Amino acid sequence: MKKFLNTPESLLDESLRGFALAHADIVQLHSQPNFISRLTPSRKGKVALISGGGSGHEPLHSGFVGFGMLDAACPGQVFTSPTPDQMLAAAQAVETGGGVLFIVKNYAGDVMNFEIAAEMLDCANASVLIDDDVSLPKNHVNGRRGVAGTLIVEKILGAAAENGADLASCKAIGEQLIQNTASMGVALSSCTVPALGVPTFQLADDEMEMGVGIHGEHGRQTLPLATATAIVEQLASAIDAELQPQAGQSVLLHVNGFGATPNMELYMIYQLAAHYWQQRGVIIARSLVGNYTTSLDMAGCSITLSLMDEHLLSLWDAPVHTAALRWGC
Amino acid sequence: MKKFLNTPESLLDESLRGFALAHADIVQLHSQPNFISRLTPSRKGKVALISGGGSGHEPLHSGFVGFGMLDAACPGQVFTSPTPDQMLAAAQAVETGGGVLFIVKNYAGDVMNFEIAAEMLDCANASVLIDDDVSLPKNHVNGRRGVAGTLIVEKILGAAAENGADLASCKAIGEQLIQNTASMGVALSSCTVPALGVPTFQLADDEMEMGVGIHGEHGRQTLPLATATAIVEQLASAIDAELQPQAGQSVLLHVNGFGATPNMELYMIYQLAAHYWQQRGVIIARSLVGNYTTSLDMAGCSITLSLMDEHLLSLWDAPVHTAALRWGC
Repeated sequence: MKKFLNTPESLLDESLRGFALAHADIVQLHSQPNFISRLTPSRKGKVALISGGGSGHEPLHSGFVGFGMLDAACPGQVFTSPTPDQMLAAAQAVETGGGVLFIVKNYAGDVMNFEIAAEMLDCANASVLIDDDVSLPKNHVNGRRGVAGTLIVEKILGAAAENGADLASCKAIGEQLIQNTASMGVALSSCTVPALGVPTFQLADDEMEMGVGIHGEHGRQTLPLATATAIVEQLASAIDAELQPQAGQSVLLHVNGFGATPNMELYMIYQLAAHYWQQRGVIIARSLVGNYTTSLDMAGCSITLSLMDEHLLSLWDAPVHTAALRWGC
Repeated sequence: MKKFLNTPESLLDESLRGFALAHADIVQLHSQPNFISRLTPSRKGKVALISGGGSGHEPLHSGFVGFGMLDAACPGQVFTSPTPDQMLAAAQAVETGGGVLFIVKNYAGDVMNFEIAAEMLDCANASVLIDDDVSLPKNHVNGRRGVAGTLIVEKILGAAAENGADLASCKAIGEQLIQNTASMGVALSSCTVPALGVPTFQLADDEMEMGVGIHGEHGRQTLPLATATAIVEQLASAIDAELQPQAGQSVLLHVNGFGATPNMELYMIYQLAAHYWQQRGVIIARSLVGNYTTSLDMAGCSITLSLMDEHLLSLWDAPVHTAALRWGC
């Protein structure tokens, strides 16, 4: 294993302290239990948006705490759910009378722990479940996984909450958005969890893992490595079959890197994906390309498409000031 | 080699088209010869800032084209200097009467080709040479390499030019800044150039390359892999010996990833580096952490320190609107 490390046990704390120090103008770090919250409290009565999950997906979620996006993020150990006391402490710190909305990726541990926290909360609360990964069938026994579509929900709900949407409205916007969002990823290499020290899975030099999850879970199948155009065709056609965007439909196209894939390759993938939908008359109204929902040091990428309308576009464009997304302020 | 690729020959063009499409609100792509320029022309009489170099270091330089930073960037093939016709065409497209300042990393091909372009230009022009890599001695036969300090020069000169500094002033600010900027990097793995298909160098599982360049050039020495704290101590002490910041000195601390190192590790490195200088009474006035000057898929990072004064801090803080750096607008 080649990593910068003192000990696997100290990595998360050292990293969180670095993150909070580097972005001391935006966030603050709370310890025992760990959570990251906005430095400047939100306006009274705004719905408080809280997300979280296992670490190793940075900048998701801590990098999205700040004006126009999350109020707090709860980082678990690497690829391990945060615990209910983290969510509870975060909620108590950032709730200002508008209730709490939990944004939860669909993994058993995350779902269970956010549910426990919700039961313990003594303020109005609700949750939005993120399950945008179309590599698994809709009726999969655990449901579909939450992957890079999470960022889009966090950005758009962040803007809605800043604009004064109440708890029920935020939940409704989030649930409608995630139904209109689909993602699929492909890995060229495994990631290596620091505490394990060996790759999570093995791929031969001429193989790729199609439909991989963001923890290196297996996807649809291990396939021979194909050209970039053929890979994009597979990812995009699975997404297209799910969402069935019509000609004239506006979309947000997000190409996400898993951590070890260079920008050069990501922008090439973006170009091929944009071409796929433009050929079908779909309007690429907004784009985002980069490493946003990562899987430690995994090489690979995912494509996410969200169907957009004028309201959603205006929420996407609204000002945001976080460590990893920043525009309009 | 595991890369997303159609052919090595088509990668750069496919990637540039994707970049220009994804950021069509900021840049435009020109072909034959290739360069990226701002979508919105700069104000008349502003010094035109142009940089460039081999591709594979993205977001450097194309990701820094836009308001408050570069006017144009000239991408060469992977790790290969752009040609003088690219710089000449870029200069002719973006010069508005204030002259042209070339920002050139110190590599023989880049230096030669920018010099040829400068000789062919029929407007006022000057250049700033970036040689911030302290892993090589000051009297090295080729001089020191230009690495992650480039971004800092591009940002600060971008702001100076927007504020109305003339060509001579921009050159003077740049040269003073680079004398007060030092960087050093370490690699945990090699990168793989797409057209070659094999790693540039080999490192055993328990080795690291200390003082590596951004093309995978060898540095000071191949060493046994050490703890993160020991690695930071080595990088920081080389930088500290060069710049000798005094207690009370304000600095900009930049931790740069080479492409395949996760944010978690970069923020840990940042925390250790900040601690190194804070212990010495140095004031970390500004910070930047992330993959900005990459080396394709190389795992590793560099630390850059710039001594700052109030004027430089105000230029760093000035609005910037590019694909990869954006604040204040």
